[in-house]
Amino acid sequence: MDKEEKKILFRDLLTEKDIAAIGDLVRSTGVFNPCEMEMAEELARETYAKGPEISGYHFILAEMDHRIVGYACFGPITCSENRYDLYWIVIQNDRHRSGIGKGLLAKSEQRIAELGGVKVYVETSSLSNYEAPRLFYLRQGYQQEAILKDYYREGDDKVIFRKNLSGENKAHRK
Amino acid sequence: MDKEEKKILFRDLLTEKDIAAIGDLVRSTGVFNPCEMEMAEELARETYAKGPEISGYHFILAEMDHRIVGYACFGPITCSENRYDLYWIVIQNDRHRSGIGKGLLAKSEQRIAELGGVKVYVETSSLSNYEAPRLFYLRQGYQQEAILKDYYREGDDKVIFRKNLSGENKAHRK
Repeated sequence: MDKEEKKILFRDLLTEKDIAAIGDLVRSTGVFNPCEMEMAEELARETYAKGPEISGYHFILAEMDHRIVGYACFGPITCSENRYDLYWIVIQNDRHRSGIGKGLLAKSEQRIAELGGVKVYVETSSLSNYEAPRLFYLRQGYQQEAILKDYYREGDDKVIFRKNLSGENKAHRK
Repeated sequence: MDKEEKKILFRDLLTEKDIAAIGDLVRSTGVFNPCEMEMAEELARETYAKGPEISGYHFILAEMDHRIVGYACFGPITCSENRYDLYWIVIQNDRHRSGIGKGLLAKSEQRIAELGGVKVYVETSSLSNYEAPRLFYLRQGYQQEAILKDYYREGDDKVIFRKNLSGENKAHRK
């Protein structure tokens, strides 16, 4: 088992230990600002305590060699009909290009579809350190839907992507 | 005092009685769906219990003859720099066109500016029963920034408006 270093395991149930591990992972990337880092850990804490149905946040964790190397967080959009926000996909810095992101996205979309979701929205930043994620979503069948100029702060726009899990993007599902 | 029927009083501190009054007001309009009605009262309850700084929601109430005839609810956009969401302006059905909406919007923008806010976002629906609010925001200096097709459900788009409280829209402030 220890020799299968390439094997990625996915799970969706948070343990108490995962809360700090998620915080450590998010901080280690150097991509997120203090508010985002705090929020990531806080959402994990709330979901561990209340469960995804009440917290409104679902997690999927990716593990390699018994360590969390990435995770995804998503949840239903309040007062919408089967629309979901994919809040984060975070990957450990030295594990990019190893299929973790793609795996997390596929597992998230699969779970969202199981929960009845038909559309997934992703909100990202226009800053250059978010260029790789933006390209990633485009490659995975997401379409850029809108840009809100200077949304987060001056020079930092919000870029909104969308993917339909049924209908026009159905071909991407299998 | 009782004869001054036209006088609108604004206040921003919620009392316990206001929670049910807000729920009644929202339900009486016939505009909102069950999820929105539930959320309106829930946000008031949370803000009464924790205060606006912790709940993240600020309220401004409009009173006439000691009754709540409308209210606004807004709050900072998480992890943004001085950006605010204006979540709701609700007016009693027979009190439209009496300046309550304009007054609530002006008081909200004033409070947002006091809190350091520089941009205000409003998200509305494309449905026909939201046409009056959409025109209202345009008249009050808001600009339509994006439309997310079928965002809430099939045929129900999200329309996003924005107003800058300083800079290009400064003329609207006074």
